[in-house]
Amino acid sequence: MLPRLTLRRLLEGHHVSCRALGVRLLGSHHNHQREWSGQQQQTRHKQQVLATLAGVGAGIALWMKYNHQTAAKLETADETQKYGVYQNGLPEYTLEDVSKHATIKDRVWVSFGSGVYDITDFIAKHPGGDKILLGAGGSVEPFWALYAVHKNPHVLDLFEQYRIGNLAAQDVGESVKNMDDPYANEPRRHITLKPSSKQPFNAEPPLSLLVDNLITPNELFYVRNHLPVPDIDASTYELELFDEESQKEKTLTLKDIKKYPKQTITATVMCAGNRRSEMIKVKPVKGLSWGQAAVGNATWSGARLCDVLKDMGIEDGKTSAVHVQFEGLDTDPTSMPYGGSIPIEKALDPHGDVILAYEMNGEPIPRDHGYPVRVIVPGVVGARNVKWLGRIIVSKDESNAHWQQNDYKGFAPNVDWDTVDFKKSPAIQELPVISAICEPLEGETVKVKNGKIKIRGYAWSGGGRKIVRVDVSSDEGKNWQAADALESDKARHPRAWGWTIWTAEVPVPKGKSKVQLCVKAVDSQYNTQPENFENIWNLRGVLSNAYHRVNINLAK
Amino acid sequence: MLPRLTLRRLLEGHHVSCRALGVRLLGSHHNHQREWSGQQQQTRHKQQVLATLAGVGAGIALWMKYNHQTAAKLETADETQKYGVYQNGLPEYTLEDVSKHATIKDRVWVSFGSGVYDITDFIAKHPGGDKILLGAGGSVEPFWALYAVHKNPHVLDLFEQYRIGNLAAQDVGESVKNMDDPYANEPRRHITLKPSSKQPFNAEPPLSLLVDNLITPNELFYVRNHLPVPDIDASTYELELFDEESQKEKTLTLKDIKKYPKQTITATVMCAGNRRSEMIKVKPVKGLSWGQAAVGNATWSGARLCDVLKDMGIEDGKTSAVHVQFEGLDTDPTSMPYGGSIPIEKALDPHGDVILAYEMNGEPIPRDHGYPVRVIVPGVVGARNVKWLGRIIVSKDESNAHWQQNDYKGFAPNVDWDTVDFKKSPAIQELPVISAICEPLEGETVKVKNGKIKIRGYAWSGGGRKIVRVDVSSDEGKNWQAADALESDKARHPRAWGWTIWTAEVPVPKGKSKVQLCVKAVDSQYNTQPENFENIWNLRGVLSNAYHRVNINLAK
Repeated sequence: MLPRLTLRRLLEGHHVSCRALGVRLLGSHHNHQREWSGQQQQTRHKQQVLATLAGVGAGIALWMKYNHQTAAKLETADETQKYGVYQNGLPEYTLEDVSKHATIKDRVWVSFGSGVYDITDFIAKHPGGDKILLGAGGSVEPFWALYAVHKNPHVLDLFEQYRIGNLAAQDVGESVKNMDDPYANEPRRHITLKPSSKQPFNAEPPLSLLVDNLITPNELFYVRNHLPVPDIDASTYELELFDEESQKEKTLTLKDIKKYPKQTITATVMCAGNRRSEMIKVKPVKGLSWGQAAVGNATWSGARLCDVLKDMGIEDGKTSAVHVQFEGLDTDPTSMPYGGSIPIEKALDPHGDVILAYEMNGEPIPRDHGYPVRVIVPGVVGARNVKWLGRIIVSKDESNAHWQQNDYKGFAPNVDWDTVDFKKSPAIQELPVISAICEPLEGETVKVKNGKIKIRGYAWSGGGRKIVRVDVSSDEGKNWQAADALESDKARHPRAWGWTIWTAEVPVPKGKSKVQLCVKAVDSQYNTQPENFENIWNLRGVLSNAYHRVNINLAK
Repeated sequence: MLPRLTLRRLLEGHHVSCRALGVRLLGSHHNHQREWSGQQQQTRHKQQVLATLAGVGAGIALWMKYNHQTAAKLETADETQKYGVYQNGLPEYTLEDVSKHATIKDRVWVSFGSGVYDITDFIAKHPGGDKILLGAGGSVEPFWALYAVHKNPHVLDLFEQYRIGNLAAQDVGESVKNMDDPYANEPRRHITLKPSSKQPFNAEPPLSLLVDNLITPNELFYVRNHLPVPDIDASTYELELFDEESQKEKTLTLKDIKKYPKQTITATVMCAGNRRSEMIKVKPVKGLSWGQAAVGNATWSGARLCDVLKDMGIEDGKTSAVHVQFEGLDTDPTSMPYGGSIPIEKALDPHGDVILAYEMNGEPIPRDHGYPVRVIVPGVVGARNVKWLGRIIVSKDESNAHWQQNDYKGFAPNVDWDTVDFKKSPAIQELPVISAICEPLEGETVKVKNGKIKIRGYAWSGGGRKIVRVDVSSDEGKNWQAADALESDKARHPRAWGWTIWTAEVPVPKGKSKVQLCVKAVDSQYNTQPENFENIWNLRGVLSNAYHRVNINLAK
């Protein structure tokens, strides 16, 4: 058995057809393989398979760059029908012809629908673009069946530029034949959740309901899925742990996890892209067009990660590890799981409160939120709070997953998709201070009482920083006053993981029928929010924490 | 012996003349008293004395509100000579007459120069104003001899409104007779340090020298003293420790402290008022007019506070304490020491790196920086890094010191000195992310090479957050680019206590002879700085971390 890294290097260095390997693994009856089609079930996935998959899966990074378009674009199937169609006058190739072009040396071909494409030059032009080798020599359709989001005019227009031929009629559709719908077994969702994408499912609750409770009800908690929701049987569920330094392995059942002292914390979980729809107004970005409600506050109960790791001999000062990697049981067509990692300091800190949570608000964690076990990394971006937790790897390295390496990162406003180098920015961990007005809503008409109106909203900061003040203004920020009431749990800095709901009564300028409200929060590190989006704009539309501004009408 | 709190309540509840008590203590030959006049020396100061002083000392809080005027105002002695002079037609009182008015019931009188004042109504008007009872029934001069800063027109104009009489000629000056100059024994300072106040001494190095080294030389490290510098003999130095819960007391000599494992950290120490001079441009604030150099980065070596406390049985999970208070050996005329406190979480966290430092950059800590022992609380505002450390109290309560309760706090921009309630804001602990341009300087003419200019500066964030990016602009913030090079030590979030020195080559707009440079930093929590001072203005002029903007001229 080859160690992971060696295999990965081998894959990349020798331009082996990753797809070929991926297909072989998927097609085999390997005991440790994860199956993703049909009824998903968890099986052990040993090192070698993981190693291969790590290399293979990395290949889809490029396609996944486009996995963040707005919902509107994603689901207009009609628009996509003009792409990949038979074109008179082009040469015809079989799938076997295509498979001979799986390396840069041989030029890289892929197929889509009835189209054959030579994407070699596309690889060279884009940083990280050589990861596209995953699809090399085959069809991109298995990926697109999963990531419906790829089917948008921006990607497809680009793609069609590399068209070189037609696929032989007998091979069209072959790559997805007998492939089950990966989204056939999604959970039912509450009717009020507004999807920004349906496959994978991503949705936020109505802003007007968000701060009705300090604790967000499970049904109203925003959902951010990157892949289909796995259907896991808690009675056979197993969590694998692996320490790279000692090479120790361990498997825990849900029952085993429940034997550890049960820790309950209140923690806000927020998507890095929350409020992206506001940043988009400055200049388009790639990503789901979240409003202000891709955030929720819940109680989470489970075993402390530091207790579990201690039982493996992994303790503060006794390990050379630098990161703790998490893998979900949600997987892509190559069985590549969702993944991310956090710094070892956070994982081992007994006050870091990282827990292997099996309860959300006192109930078993709902399927959309990670049933049966989700790691809760309080104060840290939602992306690292990996759901359907399948494996923990204590390592010297950060997770190699796309979402850690090439997605949730911040950049200076001048960086665009042609100049971005994802290696230059650190993966987002703790989120900066943020706030939003939830009542009244944009465009609402509000009754003025005694010259004042009432406004409400939330404020939160990552890293366990507590909200100490929320400033509100009813004149576009010319005058400010502190909100009257801040509601939060009792947790102190630096363990204040939960949000703050604030209420303010603000005087409105006399004689005006329209005003702009705005809000900024101050946390226990006395950090506050930037004023405008122009100076924090970034190509991924993350960290969108400028003042929230809401324009309303006044009624007497 | 009465416990501290009882005595304090007694003092305040019964309107006892605090001054009378203070004077008695100072005048006595009590073994445990701290002497402040002449050559200062450290003696033990037991609970009862401290108790009294705590009550008494709190009384000067009101005067100290005015202890933050700009240097220019403080040292124009001529201006102050029109105050406290003999006025024809007013009744004459002796010091004995004045001493009969030491409570609100009897009305509160004080003397200053040849003037007698009834300040009773002043007390009632101001929140916390009853603390002025310290001066009640006596002269304010002993305080003003120490805090030259009180002698400014703003305070004195206000003060003269309460004038009711003249002091009998034989009593004028009596209260400060035989009082030595508390500033007679200050250390020599490096000639380049620019004082913003001389008594107490406060100074910063030239900005142009600040970032020549990642480690700031001791001689160039900014000095922020609140009182005269004590002259302590290291061979007789003692640090007292007291745990309120267990009532355990302990005394450590310097030798004892050096027996603990020696921990060396690199940590930036910054004044809460750094860059105040920029905020002042929006609207005046109270405080020293610091430029951008009230900050420095040094290595500090000493014993870990958590190790020392552990030896007293004070450990995480084994104490009900909430704060750790520090008292300096620098004292005011009533022997009230400088003081502050930090949350117990920070003190007990083995990765919090709070140390009882006896070395600064490998040398014994210089007198101006806390010889022989200073507590270094990395990531936390300079004010809690108490110098000349004399006593540590582990307590349920925050320090009652003026600087903790009524000074270093942030407020919303609409709060002024008439509406401020210091209880409503938390004491500043960790500082927010900040940066500054040190080269070129405001107004400088800079040579353009290949269409670019080179700029340099520092960036830092409190709470152990690392600087991950510095954005610079040469067109007032319309376009940004990340700085090319960031230099810092290797410490990782959340223990990145030291600053980052950054360098950038920025293109300048063609055909322009004047440009505005600006800078903003991003820390490992992805917090960034606010754009302008208008929205973060606060009456104390602290937390002044808006973008730093520097206007320069361009030369070909």
